[in-house]
Amino acid sequence: MSTRQQTATKNAVVLLSGGLDSTTCLAIAKAEGFKVYALSFDYGQRSASELQAAKAVASAFEVEQHSVIPLGIGALGGSSLTDTSMAVPEQESSGIPTTYVPARNTVFLSYAMALAEVVNAQTIFIGVNARDYSGYPDCRPEFIQAFEKMANLATKSAIEGASLKIEVPLIALSKAQIIAKGLALGVDYSLTVSCYQADEQGRACGRCDSCRFRAKGFAEAGGQDPTRYC
Amino acid sequence: MSTRQQTATKNAVVLLSGGLDSTTCLAIAKAEGFKVYALSFDYGQRSASELQAAKAVASAFEVEQHSVIPLGIGALGGSSLTDTSMAVPEQESSGIPTTYVPARNTVFLSYAMALAEVVNAQTIFIGVNARDYSGYPDCRPEFIQAFEKMANLATKSAIEGASLKIEVPLIALSKAQIIAKGLALGVDYSLTVSCYQADEQGRACGRCDSCRFRAKGFAEAGGQDPTRYC
Repeated sequence: MSTRQQTATKNAVVLLSGGLDSTTCLAIAKAEGFKVYALSFDYGQRSASELQAAKAVASAFEVEQHSVIPLGIGALGGSSLTDTSMAVPEQESSGIPTTYVPARNTVFLSYAMALAEVVNAQTIFIGVNARDYSGYPDCRPEFIQAFEKMANLATKSAIEGASLKIEVPLIALSKAQIIAKGLALGVDYSLTVSCYQADEQGRACGRCDSCRFRAKGFAEAGGQDPTRYC
Repeated sequence: MSTRQQTATKNAVVLLSGGLDSTTCLAIAKAEGFKVYALSFDYGQRSASELQAAKAVASAFEVEQHSVIPLGIGALGGSSLTDTSMAVPEQESSGIPTTYVPARNTVFLSYAMALAEVVNAQTIFIGVNARDYSGYPDCRPEFIQAFEKMANLATKSAIEGASLKIEVPLIALSKAQIIAKGLALGVDYSLTVSCYQADEQGRACGRCDSCRFRAKGFAEAGGQDPTRYC
């Protein structure tokens, strides 16, 4: 790594779940001229079709590289998204939902930091959203800022003077605004899967939090919702 | 997780590599009365014997639980510890060595945060050391402080008022002081492996940075070095 250039690059790591938000985020990074290194995780989520969607999206956007990292986080338990003994909630509840995965964005961003160092990227894009965020603490701007500060103390690149920036272009947008932005950039949302419990063909349940946010967003944005339901 | 008690517990997650430092750290956590949830990683390191050592140490200390998480970090490349096309350096060099694994402590601490939330621990022990630290940026106190701040914004537990503390009892100690402390606590260092390229029987090369720090530490501490060499 010592021969690597330390000048700023237009390389970016984009965290890509295969859902609506991260796909829009990837479209924004591409529109800003970044060479995209997409990063997805296989963390034992119920929905393997989400990962298939991520692959289809990465391919459609012709990214430089798409890495899929298997995570052991499911083994830790504690979330209905990875623990099949817990039910996925089908109506809005107060407080933090059981679909919360412990420390998920922290783990995701940590791997993104590692990949950023390896591919010489100074920018990480993550499609977090503090408005329709379902109460996840690690989607808030204060978390992102604290992570960025930590990241800039953690790595060899940081020591050598290359600062890392975490871009959160969706953080203040409503779901409708995200969809409108993506449609303006030509995103094909039929490739994406948002449902927490989509079937093997990527068809959505239409009842979980994520499905309801998505349907409401399309209705408000006035766009055609290409979601396929079970 | 909503039924979990939010009162302070004496549960601690201890990051355990199977080396001298993390084993001493575990001994300190036990001596302070913590119930220990040991956490190790299989990150494609050259030395599988390190993981065997971690299992032996966890068993000897009768921890509550020992989790071993397979990491995909090796696939990212960039370190001679995980990339077999790079040579492990055998003499001290200036700057950050090639044995540096990108974002390693950040990834490890992220998983520790996740486990801490699941097992209701408010304390994480990590055996980082800023003195004999080989130039790794993520062993410095300023990194640990920034991580702790981020962690306290990241999780459901933090939102609910349970703060997370990262304990670094070895951070200011010399290798000799660490060994002296461990010996005073009755640590059996014959169980531990420090070598970056130990063989399958856990025998050390005696030449890498880690071997040289260990041998020097035992010599200075005046203790019997139980290391077995190839």
